[in-house]
Amino acid sequence: MAKLKTAVIGATGYAGFELARLLLRHPRVETPLFLTREERDTQRLEDFYPQITGSQAKLEAFSWERLKNVDLLFMATPHELSRVLIPEALQKGLRVVDLSGAWRLKQAKNRAVYGFHDANPESAAKLDDSAVYGLPELHRQQIAQAQLVANPGCYATSAIVALAPLMQAGIVDAEHGVVCDAKSGVSGAGKAPTQKTHFVEVSDNLSAYSVFGHRHTGEILEQVGLKADQLIFTPHLLPIPRGILSTMYVRLKQPTTAAAVEKIFKDFYKGAEWVRVFAAGKLPQIQFSVRTNYCDVGFVLAEDGKRLVVVSCLDNLMKGAAGQALQNMNVMYGWSEREGLN
Amino acid sequence: MAKLKTAVIGATGYAGFELARLLLRHPRVETPLFLTREERDTQRLEDFYPQITGSQAKLEAFSWERLKNVDLLFMATPHELSRVLIPEALQKGLRVVDLSGAWRLKQAKNRAVYGFHDANPESAAKLDDSAVYGLPELHRQQIAQAQLVANPGCYATSAIVALAPLMQAGIVDAEHGVVCDAKSGVSGAGKAPTQKTHFVEVSDNLSAYSVFGHRHTGEILEQVGLKADQLIFTPHLLPIPRGILSTMYVRLKQPTTAAAVEKIFKDFYKGAEWVRVFAAGKLPQIQFSVRTNYCDVGFVLAEDGKRLVVVSCLDNLMKGAAGQALQNMNVMYGWSEREGLN
Amino acid sequence: MAKLKTAVIGATGYAGFELARLLLRHPRVETPLFLTREERDTQRLEDFYPQITGSQAKLEAFSWERLKNVDLLFMATPHELSRVLIPEALQKGLRVVDLSGAWRLKQAKNRAVYGFHDANPESAAKLDDSAVYGLPELHRQQIAQAQLVANPGCYATSAIVALAPLMQAGIVDAEHGVVCDAKSGVSGAGKAPTQKTHFVEVSDNLSAYSVFGHRHTGEILEQVGLKADQLIFTPHLLPIPRGILSTMYVRLKQPTTAAAVEKIFKDFYKGAEWVRVFAAGKLPQIQFSVRTNYCDVGFVLAEDGKRLVVVSCLDNLMKGAAGQALQNMNVMYGWSEREGLN
Amino acid sequence: MAKLKTAVIGATGYAGFELARLLLRHPRVETPLFLTREERDTQRLEDFYPQITGSQAKLEAFSWERLKNVDLLFMATPHELSRVLIPEALQKGLRVVDLSGAWRLKQAKNRAVYGFHDANPESAAKLDDSAVYGLPELHRQQIAQAQLVANPGCYATSAIVALAPLMQAGIVDAEHGVVCDAKSGVSGAGKAPTQKTHFVEVSDNLSAYSVFGHRHTGEILEQVGLKADQLIFTPHLLPIPRGILSTMYVRLKQPTTAAAVEKIFKDFYKGAEWVRVFAAGKLPQIQFSVRTNYCDVGFVLAEDGKRLVVVSCLDNLMKGAAGQALQNMNVMYGWSEREGLN
Repeated sequence: MAKLKTAVIGATGYAGFELARLLLRHPRVETPLFLTREERDTQRLEDFYPQITGSQAKLEAFSWERLKNVDLLFMATPHELSRVLIPEALQKGLRVVDLSGAWRLKQAKNRAVYGFHDANPESAAKLDDSAVYGLPELHRQQIAQAQLVANPGCYATSAIVALAPLMQAGIVDAEHGVVCDAKSGVSGAGKAPTQKTHFVEVSDNLSAYSVFGHRHTGEILEQVGLKADQLIFTPHLLPIPRGILSTMYVRLKQPTTAAAVEKIFKDFYKGAEWVRVFAAGKLPQIQFSVRTNYCDVGFVLAEDGKRLVVVSCLDNLMKGAAGQALQNMNVMYGWSEREGLN
Repeated sequence: MAKLKTAVIGATGYAGFELARLLLRHPRVETPLFLTREERDTQRLEDFYPQITGSQAKLEAFSWERLKNVDLLFMATPHELSRVLIPEALQKGLRVVDLSGAWRLKQAKNRAVYGFHDANPESAAKLDDSAVYGLPELHRQQIAQAQLVANPGCYATSAIVALAPLMQAGIVDAEHGVVCDAKSGVSGAGKAPTQKTHFVEVSDNLSAYSVFGHRHTGEILEQVGLKADQLIFTPHLLPIPRGILSTMYVRLKQPTTAAAVEKIFKDFYKGAEWVRVFAAGKLPQIQFSVRTNYCDVGFVLAEDGKRLVVVSCLDNLMKGAAGQALQNMNVMYGWSEREGLN
Repeated sequence: MAKLKTAVIGATGYAGFELARLLLRHPRVETPLFLTREERDTQRLEDFYPQITGSQAKLEAFSWERLKNVDLLFMATPHELSRVLIPEALQKGLRVVDLSGAWRLKQAKNRAVYGFHDANPESAAKLDDSAVYGLPELHRQQIAQAQLVANPGCYATSAIVALAPLMQAGIVDAEHGVVCDAKSGVSGAGKAPTQKTHFVEVSDNLSAYSVFGHRHTGEILEQVGLKADQLIFTPHLLPIPRGILSTMYVRLKQPTTAAAVEKIFKDFYKGAEWVRVFAAGKLPQIQFSVRTNYCDVGFVLAEDGKRLVVVSCLDNLMKGAAGQALQNMNVMYGWSEREGLN
Repeated sequence: MAKLKTAVIGATGYAGFELARLLLRHPRVETPLFLTREERDTQRLEDFYPQITGSQAKLEAFSWERLKNVDLLFMATPHELSRVLIPEALQKGLRVVDLSGAWRLKQAKNRAVYGFHDANPESAAKLDDSAVYGLPELHRQQIAQAQLVANPGCYATSAIVALAPLMQAGIVDAEHGVVCDAKSGVSGAGKAPTQKTHFVEVSDNLSAYSVFGHRHTGEILEQVGLKADQLIFTPHLLPIPRGILSTMYVRLKQPTTAAAVEKIFKDFYKGAEWVRVFAAGKLPQIQFSVRTNYCDVGFVLAEDGKRLVVVSCLDNLMKGAAGQALQNMNVMYGWSEREGLN
């Protein structure tokens, strides 16, 4: 069987390189094209990542010509660039998985935080509608058919996986409000060196940021069905390279049992390859899922049966970015979701 | 002027050693006695902490005889031992600052988590009543007169400093419930090596623990005036040696302004040497207060004026333990609260 | 084709668990038996390592009966136990890869540091002779035939891979002496919690230990052909979970060129799947090989052409332990050395 | 007694800020001037370092006018700037402690690595001669009289403190060559964010760099009296914020005893406040001296009495930079060397 022809734009960033490593090992994919829009004096991916010393992966200049025979394009680029290039790629008939935030949001008020300037607002609006939010556990069928998959944000994935089953079961007192206190490793902040990512500033430290204003908030609201004032989402920067742990505080409408809550999660994720539901009272830790594509979920219910603490963990570069992109590819082409991810 | 005669029982633990270092530098204190109840083949504190190589600090066997001329006794011991020794120490006329959880709680239901077995329950109950909770920012006058000061828990200090001003101002919708999502460095777990504190288990990791069941919860409830079902307190173990950051989620009764909230904090801590209130919208980080006795507090108010996120930071061995013990000593003897802590 | 039947004794330690993970994924190996000699109230490996939550791997009590149909036994046990059990296992016809230090040393004076007490000294001595040192890059042919493979020490591997090519090329001034300054992550110290492995003692720290006395010294001497007084080996404990970097200082007999040195390394490791030789002047870092089975080698030659600094890196749990054990299995059964290790 | 008037140029870097903190607490020093040559929209030091929130320290624009009443000027600036400004400062009668590498080297061939372009080469050459190398343990008398003190490099201090006593005692076989394998925390690389100091690149990693080419090599050679080909100095970047550990390998001319070596160190540092010599066989660790001004030295002598491993540790921002600058100030003004450093 002919292997799939893929290309990655932006393979020198952390998520892009993680994706490159996964694609290079995927049994159904040809050696991908790695393209860049920046002029650099290098032509090998290993010059940026000596981890793959010995690989022959090239880094080539981007051109539409170069993409001619490609089936599936991964965009690991800033959202501005995704917003510009993707409409053209789709017109040329490519399928696209976009790792940026460019096409994730359905509601204009949520997209506003990105401040997009579209050359053609009308066609952009159509694309906003047709793009599929790439969380396979929620939208498997649509992803299979999609031409454009908007790969979810890392924080958003950790929150949605934990909250969606409870919301859909109708047991959450949404009026009361949900708190999501999230903590992420530093690779989530990208590879560009800044004062914020300097080792001396991060190590032995913890800080909260973007309180009431983080861009992933809109994704969570839209996907789980909360209103803007029903969610407080607070990210923190952890002194670790990768991994997210989100602690969520939920009030239930009616007192319930831990067994009932566990059943809701287990039913929801029945057959899901990449979500692991822990037994009631057992909580995941970042180490359990880091460097895997798992999102782990656990919870503790208070004795009153109404106050629920849910903890979810994932690797922000895997289930939070590149791993999920690969999982989406598997769904788009009808392969096992575990393919290339074990 | 004669210097104060002090003794420390338990100087080989992390908090005890931090206290030892502070006392060795305090200008109004004689070289303290460092006493231990364990038989060991050593007689110098530096054998446990080469950091103070060159110091002449001895480590001696505990006896009441040895304490004869001591004015002030610090207990950096397990709470069971504090519960046993302190009644006798008080009878002998010593003043005591206890760093354990033995005497912090006023309500029997909160003390229950410790499962104390008192030889003389009646006199223990009296002592429970008369012991002063050693948070100078709340109980300065009583500490000055106290014979027994119960030094607060590290997590509890970070939560109380942030919540007490809001609760006393009467603006908190307590019925709605308060969330305190706290994160601590590993020294808070003590010096005894366990699987949980093994470097490989902690590094590159984050974990929540004791959900709905941490012992410091009772202190927070009693000191800020919340009922048991009005507070969710969730501690997490951070991969750093020291420092606590607590993120608190509070609903206000009425919409208010950031300026009004800032004024509440600033008024409450007017003249307080060891609490720093950050300007509205600016948040403290662990690095800002680590290795100092400061507890830093900052907040962000949502646009609706009702949802408030408060962040507090402190060093769990300083303001969360030994530094606060020294501050209490300063208050007990009428000295400046900064003495020996700069 | 029938798959290989394997068993692991000691799968709950760090190296044992790494091996378990590798074996569970190896395409030519049946689900292995995981055996333990300790009585525990558990029967699943995931109770020790929630990382593999969802796996069905059992943890069973050790018995010879249980090993009856096993082809290959991995021992990830303390060396005392390896010294006791392996002679019996060999008699029963099992092939064995031993990850401990029990059977690595050929010279009695080097074995002395372990202080073995063999029930049958004579047969133990025979076994000492016939055991094959399991560094495939040096002893590929013998490993293929061996009944007992003594898997090398982690530090030893990093030093031997760097020094053996130079020694065999005859360019090293051995009389002058070789310095190996090695640094290792904490998992090398094992999973048992000790004061030395407590997070607070390791983090933000570096320490040298076992100067002139580390057990791996003998392996290096024997394998590269240096005399005891021609090598100084100094290990250090790094504040990272895994990875080794060794910096070696070598004086050459005659001035030479960087190209000549590079050729020596490249020729020596021609066709070797798991050693990567860096171009002259480029040095490996721990991150480049961690979580892979590579040992990376690089060097810088001084302008005088005589003073050579060689740096080698590997993952102490992979090429330094479990990965190398798997590589040895691949060699023993005539499979590609990359099988199960990509 | 009138307090000393000081100024710091470059207080926003890591070493400059450490110096600022020390000076703000020094009992014999007025609140210093903090000057900057960069235009910034800020006027307070705490905007760069919230650690000192509440301090009133201002950050002002540099001008010679502003320095008019200053007694002692600290330069925590790039060496190019020190090379330009210091001649003028000296002409104006200021005393200067320079933390850069601008004036440390006596030999032109060693200075060559910096590539200085002096406007007035002749007067620069005179200054090169008269500048005093600011290691008080070696040059206490000259520092006391000096107008310009060149504060040593952090790596250089750790090496010189360990090697100078042995070299001066005449026991080192210098012909054989000395190896110094040094490891430093990241703050030594400065505050400017670069790929090399990005948290994700440094954490869980170790790397060697500048092999045979680090700028501090010349300082070590000049101060201990080795020739260029008699020393190999290899720095490594540790995943910790601060601290240096150097491991040195020395061959002795004649077999000697550990007691004799210990006596050499103890005699050399008799009365030295900031060097601690450990008992033979006991080695310092980074944690023992970090956040102090100590340089700790320990050693192990091989059984043959000829091969010696010496380990020294210090905090690169304290004894390796700002602490040593303060110690130099204490010497220059005849104060106790401990003043302001306890």
